[in-house]
Amino acid sequence: MSTEEKVYVGSKPILAYVTAVITSFQKADSVKVMARGRAISSAVDIVEVTKRSFMTDINVEDITIGTERLGEEGHERNVSTISIKLSRPKK
Amino acid sequence: MSTEEKVYVGSKPILAYVTAVITSFQKADSVKVMARGRAISSAVDIVEVTKRSFMTDINVEDITIGTERLGEEGHERNVSTISIKLSRPKK
Repeated sequence: MSTEEKVYVGSKPILAYVTAVITSFQKADSVKVMARGRAISSAVDIVEVTKRSFMTDINVEDITIGTERLGEEGHERNVSTISIKLSRPKK
Repeated sequence: MSTEEKVYVGSKPILAYVTAVITSFQKADSVKVMARGRAISSAVDIVEVTKRSFMTDINVEDITIGTERLGEEGHERNVSTISIKLSRPKK
């Protein structure tokens, strides 16, 4: 069991993604929480709520930010991204 | 010159903070971009715009996230925070 799961954050309520993170940790040692644009704030909320209230043993291993070009040709725009890698110590 | 400047992100337009980051680098080797709650997405935008369009030589050295308790006694709430440390290689 050394796979990595990914959770993409959209516009659902925070707790929907918290549940997704918890479920993902049943299948993998590490989980990446990914978000774009306005959902970046939610991604940080999801990680903080998961750590504080549900899985106090997880660690934030790495956080990276970047830019993606979205949209059709001639109407492209830049969108910021975040990727927060979480891991859980093995028992 | 080894001081660190801080830029606190609020609800002004992105470019106001981009300017603040650029100005801060005239006084210090590293700049921390700090934000809470919904402003977290803006903080990432500010760093990405600064790096891409104004100061292509800066590095994202460290990103940390956390939680702060805000509000008066009996009405406290948790707010997520981000701190993005930027540095510029010495010439």
